[in-house]
Amino acid sequence: MNTAALEALRARYGERLSTAAPVLEAHGRDESHPTVHPPHAVLFAHSEADVVDALRLASEHGFPVTPFAVGSSLEGQVIPVQGGLSLDVSQLNRVLSIEPGGFQATVQPGVTYPQLNRQVRPHGLFFPVDPGAEASLGGMASTNASGTGAVRYGTTRDNVLELRVALMDGTVIRAGSKARKTSAGYDLKNVFIGAEGTLGIITELTVKLWPLPAHVVVVRCTFPTVQAAAACAVMVMGAALQPERLELIDEHEIHAVNAYEGTAYPEAPTLWIELAAPSASALEETLAVCVELCEDAGAQHLDTARSAAERAKVWEARHHAYHAMSALYPGHARLSTDLCVPLHRLPDVLGAAREACDAASLRASFVGHVGDGNFHVLFHAPPDDAATWAAIHRVYDDMVELALAAGGTCSGEHGVGLHKRGYLAREHGDSLHVMRGLKALFDPRGLLNPGKILP
Amino acid sequence: MNTAALEALRARYGERLSTAAPVLEAHGRDESHPTVHPPHAVLFAHSEADVVDALRLASEHGFPVTPFAVGSSLEGQVIPVQGGLSLDVSQLNRVLSIEPGGFQATVQPGVTYPQLNRQVRPHGLFFPVDPGAEASLGGMASTNASGTGAVRYGTTRDNVLELRVALMDGTVIRAGSKARKTSAGYDLKNVFIGAEGTLGIITELTVKLWPLPAHVVVVRCTFPTVQAAAACAVMVMGAALQPERLELIDEHEIHAVNAYEGTAYPEAPTLWIELAAPSASALEETLAVCVELCEDAGAQHLDTARSAAERAKVWEARHHAYHAMSALYPGHARLSTDLCVPLHRLPDVLGAAREACDAASLRASFVGHVGDGNFHVLFHAPPDDAATWAAIHRVYDDMVELALAAGGTCSGEHGVGLHKRGYLAREHGDSLHVMRGLKALFDPRGLLNPGKILP
Ligand SMILES: Cc1cc2nc3c(=O)[nH]c(=O)nc-3n(C[C@H](O)[C@H](O)[C@H](O)COP(=O)(O)OP(=O)(O)OC[C@H]3O[C@@H](n4cnc5c(N)ncnc54)[C@H](O)[C@@H]3O)c2cc1C
Ligand SMILES: Cc1cc2nc3c(=O)[nH]c(=O)nc-3n(C[C@H](O)[C@H](O)[C@H](O)COP(=O)(O)OP(=O)(O)OC[C@H]3O[C@@H](n4cnc5c(N)ncnc54)[C@H](O)[C@@H]3O)c2cc1C
Repeated sequence: MNTAALEALRARYGERLSTAAPVLEAHGRDESHPTVHPPHAVLFAHSEADVVDALRLASEHGFPVTPFAVGSSLEGQVIPVQGGLSLDVSQLNRVLSIEPGGFQATVQPGVTYPQLNRQVRPHGLFFPVDPGAEASLGGMASTNASGTGAVRYGTTRDNVLELRVALMDGTVIRAGSKARKTSAGYDLKNVFIGAEGTLGIITELTVKLWPLPAHVVVVRCTFPTVQAAAACAVMVMGAALQPERLELIDEHEIHAVNAYEGTAYPEAPTLWIELAAPSASALEETLAVCVELCEDAGAQHLDTARSAAERAKVWEARHHAYHAMSALYPGHARLSTDLCVPLHRLPDVLGAAREACDAASLRASFVGHVGDGNFHVLFHAPPDDAATWAAIHRVYDDMVELALAAGGTCSGEHGVGLHKRGYLAREHGDSLHVMRGLKALFDPRGLLNPGKILP
Repeated sequence: MNTAALEALRARYGERLSTAAPVLEAHGRDESHPTVHPPHAVLFAHSEADVVDALRLASEHGFPVTPFAVGSSLEGQVIPVQGGLSLDVSQLNRVLSIEPGGFQATVQPGVTYPQLNRQVRPHGLFFPVDPGAEASLGGMASTNASGTGAVRYGTTRDNVLELRVALMDGTVIRAGSKARKTSAGYDLKNVFIGAEGTLGIITELTVKLWPLPAHVVVVRCTFPTVQAAAACAVMVMGAALQPERLELIDEHEIHAVNAYEGTAYPEAPTLWIELAAPSASALEETLAVCVELCEDAGAQHLDTARSAAERAKVWEARHHAYHAMSALYPGHARLSTDLCVPLHRLPDVLGAAREACDAASLRASFVGHVGDGNFHVLFHAPPDDAATWAAIHRVYDDMVELALAAGGTCSGEHGVGLHKRGYLAREHGDSLHVMRGLKALFDPRGLLNPGKILP
């Protein structure tokens, strides 16, 4: 970014523009990335007009713009690899309206999902998508995030009704509808969901809300192997129990969680299954079916968490799983896969992935939103252990091939960012030319979050 | 289409190409359209290669291609207004695979949803989107159809995992994933859903299947006004009863249904509410809550249908609603609106729409998938009664304004086609330039179903 550009930004935004070293540095890194690529400047947007003008100035001066919300994405998405402006939307954080009767809320993009949930809870409602980090709704839309609630309520994509998006051509468009469904013209809304800020900047979202489940129980049960646990998860889905959550956590991760949370969960491959029903008696019926299923599937230690406090503890542990592993191996670098396969293929693919890790003697823990067929292998090793990292990447490559051969995807929820562009080429080689065409349509000069998604 | 083009098609396809007058005529009309616009030729595609070659020949010779499946769409979508080739995909009608454990099936685009349901039923599964006509899955994807099941299971969009699509550039791409969710790159799948065959030809679909509900009951209840019935529907949704179906049918339509089906349903504004639960006792609980709610909301005559045969009769009547009205007024022309608004706005908008019809003394019956906020006003009048038709269009225009002002859409499920392009401009005026860009990206010469969607 040249001086003229910086001066134009300064003139327009004054104090909202920062070039302070710690601010630049904080906008040049993420969980996944060893090195820092600071932007030239950070703009803290306070309005849609701020965003529109930033895109206009970027066009005029030819500098890149990389949106930044909470910065919790895991594939290098927020890193401004070509410098330029980091467009921080985290202060666009007002809940604009809540319509309980319409099961919807309209928010600015920097609103986080826990913040929204605190505000809608008094209405008996909640927003069900819950990635482990306290992510923003704009960031979640931009990576199509999910989490533990997706098995029952869908992904962020399924829970966004309408967007306002600022485009590089200077316009702001409304995509989608506040109605629950629409067949009016081309679907532009879904083009922006999962686009990682490379096609436009989301300035407002209308999202779906759901009634809080009435009666809830969590089943915890262990299995001899991750493959057996996955097979049980498939049976639970097949029995139409419609779990609220269905999570797999392997013995290594349970060990880390116990150390981090001070819990004493049995250290074996585990399923955490949340069930809900409209009445206490209906819940008991559902629970009984689930317990029978789990026992048939070879569950060993089986327990339930019933009180709100007990259940909260389980899900807090799940949300801290990533940090728990980091805490256990301080100084290690980490890498997480994010494969997702059709449900009937999950036990095989998971079993083969586990074997590949074992065969290569890699430290790898498995966690997964297995009701969706989605699992993460968390690798870790000292950053300078080149041989281990080479082995990790070899095994990761093989796992991607396995998942794709099973009809799956290289990313269930984290997105592509910097790190998975090669895998995107393997998965969607036949349509990359169309994806490039779409990028050129919205951002002909390649100024929006350059270097991401497309290989 | 010139002689050279016709000869090239004939050389490639032989008997599969037809220029017989009755075939051309059958591909030049639909329910909505008074006049016939026959294509120059009809191709009955038998393979993906047939489709790819048709697009190649279209490019070479510059003739338009309009896909045709069952031809049940209601907005003139299949009418080849510029002639050329009608690409009939109805004989691409094989179910390619069923994966019960993955809750999915892969089909050719001409497979109809009743056909798929007959094949997956033995697995205890079903495909839940059910427009009134026996539509094809490719056609349903192309209009983003819904029907009575969408309130619980979502629209066709929500139930398509993956597509294969033949493009004008000669390539065939795979869009989406067989996994339940994916964040791998730009979402191309949703670009084709609802695109009415104007961006590419769907040659294969992988769709979601759902477990058949275990215990089911239908509640039928009447109300003094459509507005009161709609208010009750909103309460049912608010109470989180998660109905399988939630349909409004007004007194005029019930009258038509009684005449057509030989039933004796009370001729008043009516809700038909289907409830399901995993056990008989849970169903009784849900039913009790629903009945109490309906009575609180002013339900008058309330009845239940419990046996499979009784329930089937109710939904058959609902699916025949359109034809029942046609049968009652033979010779009349018909026009159906398809508005959809956020749920909390439904009673007001519906009430105002009813008043507008009454004030203009129009014959209009109301039916609606009201759990989605979606309703149809079915107008009818003798085709040559110009004054009445002018009044109908005036009232329709006003209703669209009402719905848009309430945050709604001009089409909940039927699509835009020929007839709603003006309404699309009102709803999405701010993004029509982007929609045009998308069209130009996929079909730069405007050969795919020209004249549809874009005003
Ligand atoms: C401990 C931990 C656990 C996690 N668990 C999960 C999980 O279970 N499931 C899951 O899906 N993810 C998970 N994640 C990843 C992360 O939380 C998600 O990717 C989340 O969606 C990122 O949101 P954010 O607000 O942090 O966005 P950021 O990281 O700030 O941005 C993400 C992307 O969106 C773009 N962007 C941000 N705001 C906008 C906007 N307004 N308009 C356009 N583009 C924008 C950015 O440029 C970037 O490309 C986890 C991360 C951590 C650290
Ligand atoms: C009595 C009646 C009741 C109805 N009820 C409902 C209802 O409740 N809900 C609802 O949503 N709709 C309803 N409809 C409308 C209609 O059934 C839907 O629009 C349906 O999706 C059309 O499917 P089709 O197979 O008939 O497609 P067609 O009408 O043949 O085609 C529809 C559109 O898709 C395109 N197309 C078809 N196949 C392909 C392909 N393979 N690739 C690309 N483009 C393709 C065509 O060019 C056209 O633009 C009803 C219609 C009738 C007559």
